Amino acid sequence: MDSAEARRRFAAARVARLATADADGHPHLVPVVFAVDGDRVWTAVDDVKPKATMRLQRLRNIAANPAVALLADHYEDDDWTALWWARADGTARLLDPADPAAQPARDLLAERYAPYRDAPPPGVVVAIDVVRWSGWAAAD
Amino acid sequence: MDSAEARRRFAAARVARLATADADGHPHLVPVVFAVDGDRVWTAVDDVKPKATMRLQRLRNIAANPAVALLADHYEDDDWTALWWARADGTARLLDPADPAAQPARDLLAERYAPYRDAPPPGVVVAIDVVRWSGWAAAD
Repeated sequence: MDSAEARRRFAAARVARLATADADGHPHLVPVVFAVDGDRVWTAVDDVKPKATMRLQRLRNIAANPAVALLADHYEDDDWTALWWARADGTARLLDPADPAAQPARDLLAERYAPYRDAPPPGVVVAIDVVRWSGWAAAD
Repeated sequence: MDSAEARRRFAAARVARLATADADGHPHLVPVVFAVDGDRVWTAVDDVKPKATMRLQRLRNIAANPAVALLADHYEDDDWTALWWARADGTARLLDPADPAAQPARDLLAERYAPYRDAPPPGVVVAIDVVRWSGWAAAD
């Protein structure tokens, strides 16, 4: 799968998994909702409390080590020829919710996810600059 | 969610995502099919060619850094109260396909996945000893 197709499939997915690693290289994994804008992936933290937020392992990991990976995939038990995945490898940075640069992320997320329309995620925004889109499809 | 419930939900899932990290702490992410036996998670490589296999990033990462994380999750666009995830953090090791200790893994995988019944995965087996089961459910 070429990088344009990997990006297209990733951007159309509704959920992805975010892998970070701490300074000692221990990986950490959580599911995230997200929005893609060009070669940037946005995700955000629902929790508004700054102290609780910064205890989140994913955020502590990014602060210590900005290298991250995101994965979207499709699985069908009955048909392994339908399997595919798309991955974004990149560099993450954290934006304070009050930073004006965080607003476009909330707008894109609210556009994409109905529950965010009434209540955009109030917490820290994570911006991931993707350096590599890759993927695989069983049917290729 | 307590660790017993996280383990139960993880073990019942059909697909998980495996996060590894290289020696420099760059995370890597692929979807995997798997089987749980107690506090061990088994997964295996489909490719039989030893040289191609050892070029796989996940295996090179595990050889350099055995800390891994696996995630199973449930997403529903229409109902965010139904969301949950379950994670296994642990230590991975690689078993040569010819190692007799790899056979129980192939048996469990073949029992669990129809496509493996006729053709069990012939490649390297990954054994993950889970040190922590954790999870979250929106409904809790």
